[in-house]
Amino acid sequence: MAAEKRRISILGSTGSIGVNTLDVINQLGGRDAFDVQAITGSSNISLLAEQALTSGARLAVTADESRYGELKEALAGSTTEVAAGREALIEAASREADWVMAAIVGIAGLAPTLAAARRGADIALANKECLVSAGELFVNAVAEGGGRLIPVDSEHSAIFQSLEDDQHHAVERIVLTASGGPFRTWTRDKMKGVTADIARAHPNWSMGLKISIGSASMFNKALEMIEAKHLFNLRPEQIEVIVHPQSIIHSMVGYTDGSVLAQLGCPDMRTAIGYALTYPNRPKLDVERLDFAKLARLDFEAPDEVRFPALRLARAALQRGGAQGAVMNGAEETAFQAFCEGRIGFLAMADVVERVMDDMVMFPAATDMEGVFAADAEARRLAAEVITKTEMAA
Amino acid sequence: MAAEKRRISILGSTGSIGVNTLDVINQLGGRDAFDVQAITGSSNISLLAEQALTSGARLAVTADESRYGELKEALAGSTTEVAAGREALIEAASREADWVMAAIVGIAGLAPTLAAARRGADIALANKECLVSAGELFVNAVAEGGGRLIPVDSEHSAIFQSLEDDQHHAVERIVLTASGGPFRTWTRDKMKGVTADIARAHPNWSMGLKISIGSASMFNKALEMIEAKHLFNLRPEQIEVIVHPQSIIHSMVGYTDGSVLAQLGCPDMRTAIGYALTYPNRPKLDVERLDFAKLARLDFEAPDEVRFPALRLARAALQRGGAQGAVMNGAEETAFQAFCEGRIGFLAMADVVERVMDDMVMFPAATDMEGVFAADAEARRLAAEVITKTEMAA
Repeated sequence: MAAEKRRISILGSTGSIGVNTLDVINQLGGRDAFDVQAITGSSNISLLAEQALTSGARLAVTADESRYGELKEALAGSTTEVAAGREALIEAASREADWVMAAIVGIAGLAPTLAAARRGADIALANKECLVSAGELFVNAVAEGGGRLIPVDSEHSAIFQSLEDDQHHAVERIVLTASGGPFRTWTRDKMKGVTADIARAHPNWSMGLKISIGSASMFNKALEMIEAKHLFNLRPEQIEVIVHPQSIIHSMVGYTDGSVLAQLGCPDMRTAIGYALTYPNRPKLDVERLDFAKLARLDFEAPDEVRFPALRLARAALQRGGAQGAVMNGAEETAFQAFCEGRIGFLAMADVVERVMDDMVMFPAATDMEGVFAADAEARRLAAEVITKTEMAA
Repeated sequence: MAAEKRRISILGSTGSIGVNTLDVINQLGGRDAFDVQAITGSSNISLLAEQALTSGARLAVTADESRYGELKEALAGSTTEVAAGREALIEAASREADWVMAAIVGIAGLAPTLAAARRGADIALANKECLVSAGELFVNAVAEGGGRLIPVDSEHSAIFQSLEDDQHHAVERIVLTASGGPFRTWTRDKMKGVTADIARAHPNWSMGLKISIGSASMFNKALEMIEAKHLFNLRPEQIEVIVHPQSIIHSMVGYTDGSVLAQLGCPDMRTAIGYALTYPNRPKLDVERLDFAKLARLDFEAPDEVRFPALRLARAALQRGGAQGAVMNGAEETAFQAFCEGRIGFLAMADVVERVMDDMVMFPAATDMEGVFAADAEARRLAAEVITKTEMAA
């Protein structure tokens, strides 16, 4: 038991990362060990209220202003303050927590996470836009705030765990592992016929449609490459991707002496969350242990950038710099939405993203949050145009 | 380039570890970066002399007193001092080196390595008897001397590299990988007919007959389990062995949060040697890099302690404590010799070792070097007796 309770906040507490974060917190002592400053959610008000009551959170915020009354009612008689809306999210992020889980999904997570970073909190990062879209801006904000930035994504956590202190100069490459998704062995022709329903069945993780489709197209991995660049200050050519269908090796770091360090584990996000929470110490967690005899084998294959052009596009984004990360992300989300609506095919997603990236190659890197939003919005607008043209041509 | 040259010595410089150590030293600047205090060898006088001239060693020692004149002559006119015999080995180890590669094979390596450890040098350890036979005595000598102990064996180096500073309390287990040797899939019946010639063909490493047979019987792995206990201060139940035929994952550490950290590499001992030489920094080495797509797959299987009783015997030695490590090692070397001479069969080696270990279960743990030698000698004497009886019964 720590003499003083750790002050923490969870931005995005009702999503899978948030739920798992609260599970880890419970395993590590719950209210006896942690003083929960703020939790935030969106539309799942009953879960948010329940989490507030169980964790003893001082503030509960719903991003959805129209649900304020509902949340207020659910927490009536409790000691938890209630607020709603975008400004309230930033207020939640600004509360005096030592550690903030940044798990708000999408570009909406940028402003609150930046607020927490500038304040100097340790940031456990699960929001991808902070790095993909805001890259240097975000990394600089963390550095200026003076807190630590600890990735929660299993791949980046693995790299973080495999990096040795003070040996950045000896890092030759990082090797991001990719499950390869459900279409790993499919031809391009077969992929053409893929619908959102078919893509939903991802082999190892069950984390919703966006991630399943991102895994199937390898756009997830592509965006992780961009995140890795900013997180670990790498040159584009230092970032390698290897397909590893079992997803047991979560990622690796190759050093100048020929050594490769790797982090392995069962597919359970609580390991990375717990590591981020107690870093540099390791917690004791009730999660499944790896049984190597039961695993029996681990496979590897080179990713095919013809069938999975997302990887090629990520490499272009890394080399071009500028706003290409934000552009790639905004265009991809728009294309994904159109795919889900049956407006464009599976392979057309990458075509849309590539067109938008090429059109916006001169768009300048953001120097502030407005710049990030501008690149994102322009990418979405252009993507929508390309999608409409694609539909008309079909 | 370091402003001041690092003072190093290589005990056992003409063996494969020694040769590779000098290669690493050359890669890292040779005589411009290192001041070689002493090198030692045994019967390969021409190589020893050549190494002395190339490295600029201040002292060259042959363990074989009868070869003194030969070495003296080969180094005539050079600045290298020459000496011979057991006392000279200890003198070599006692020279003021900051770092000592301890690669003298067998129980003969104990006294010189202890001398270097007591003097406070950093010890790069490649001699197994220091840990298997002298265990606590040796570890205590290093601690008292104040130097670092860095393993050079690929498995222990992998564990050392996968251990995080100050997280010993969070180490749940170590997982030693074993190639399984050439008889991995053989029945006990088939193993009965094995001769020394058949056993020589080990799949991944080519390091002489002793290691090849030790790999085939898994006695190597068994002794590594005992080394790991002392090196990393582990309880017997924390030491796991997994058969991994490709030998790419060199070993792993499992933590209380479910994470497993692993070190991987091509089978090249220079990586572990270089790491030991520059620890905690990593050197830049010209060794082969892992290509995961080319590897394609890594396999794992539970070791079979019925077909490979050495592992069961190591577990017994770990649980019994006392002098069982020294006993197991002495008996195994004697049994190995008898096997090579065709006096006993492949499977009889473990039977001999088990008998001797059982007979010496009350033999006390050594409190000094003489105690280690006594346990070793008694184990060899008893093993010889058991071997003679086995021969007579056959």
